[in-house]
Amino acid sequence: MTDPKPLKIRAARAGDFAEIWAIFHAVVAAGDTYAYAPETTMTEARRIWMEPPTAPYVAERGGRIVGTYALRPNQPGLGDHVANCGYMTHPDARGQGVGAAMCAHSLQAAGERGYTAMQFNFVVASNEGAVQLWQRFGFAIVGRIPAAFRHRALGPVDVLIMHRSLT
Amino acid sequence: MTDPKPLKIRAARAGDFAEIWAIFHAVVAAGDTYAYAPETTMTEARRIWMEPPTAPYVAERGGRIVGTYALRPNQPGLGDHVANCGYMTHPDARGQGVGAAMCAHSLQAAGERGYTAMQFNFVVASNEGAVQLWQRFGFAIVGRIPAAFRHRALGPVDVLIMHRSLT
Repeated sequence: MTDPKPLKIRAARAGDFAEIWAIFHAVVAAGDTYAYAPETTMTEARRIWMEPPTAPYVAERGGRIVGTYALRPNQPGLGDHVANCGYMTHPDARGQGVGAAMCAHSLQAAGERGYTAMQFNFVVASNEGAVQLWQRFGFAIVGRIPAAFRHRALGPVDVLIMHRSLT
Repeated sequence: MTDPKPLKIRAARAGDFAEIWAIFHAVVAAGDTYAYAPETTMTEARRIWMEPPTAPYVAERGGRIVGTYALRPNQPGLGDHVANCGYMTHPDARGQGVGAAMCAHSLQAAGERGYTAMQFNFVVASNEGAVQLWQRFGFAIVGRIPAAFRHRALGPVDVLIMHRSLT
């Protein structure tokens, strides 16, 4: 059943980090979607997700943070017109459209910040739900790296690079 | 004319940084091959090129550093079996095989460090000499990002992702 309470997406504040960390840790510890080491510490997670040039956002429902995304330049300097974004949904809130809502929000936020494209560097090919979701949002697969991810359950898995223009 | 003095490639030491910085600055200021901002500072360059997990190397000829490369994991954690490497040759030493010698050395160094593949994330498509050199060393083009680099002279240019197994 989809939770009837509305989803609100907003820029994250420092005080949100405890809830963000709970999501980050749950997602990363599973070892099936992100390269970050399953044993990544809270301090490292804060640096990865909360420090400039990364701009963190949260998705709230009923006063509880159910998802988070981090928007940043994919490259410095002469490549910083292309955004990168990572999304994480709390395991308890999956299948409720949180990822899709965050993706839509991030495309708008990236455009407002002046980015002209968005690139995902590390979409684990076995994460088919994510690949299909990004394709629905207009992302194309522009690269494939063989066996670049050591999936905890599946072993070596290919990684996709996905890209979408924002103009 | 090729310089007859032999090229020696070795791990960089902290005291090499002044010469490395001269090369880094000259290469980056040109704005035609690397995303790093042309105005990147010495402090930023030291962090990018010299700090762990990056392992820096230098190519010396006649006691002078003519090239440098930086070897690092391309991803953290569950992606850290794939190496990334960046190479820079002093403008005065181009066309003398320094880049090729550094590439060969880096493939061996990466294998010795336990990496099973090497990936370049940002090969500027207009840098045809580099693309051909990496292909000669067995790298395949596995991705292409449209207009991901703002070339100082050419404007928006595609970027290639290149990959080579080390096993």
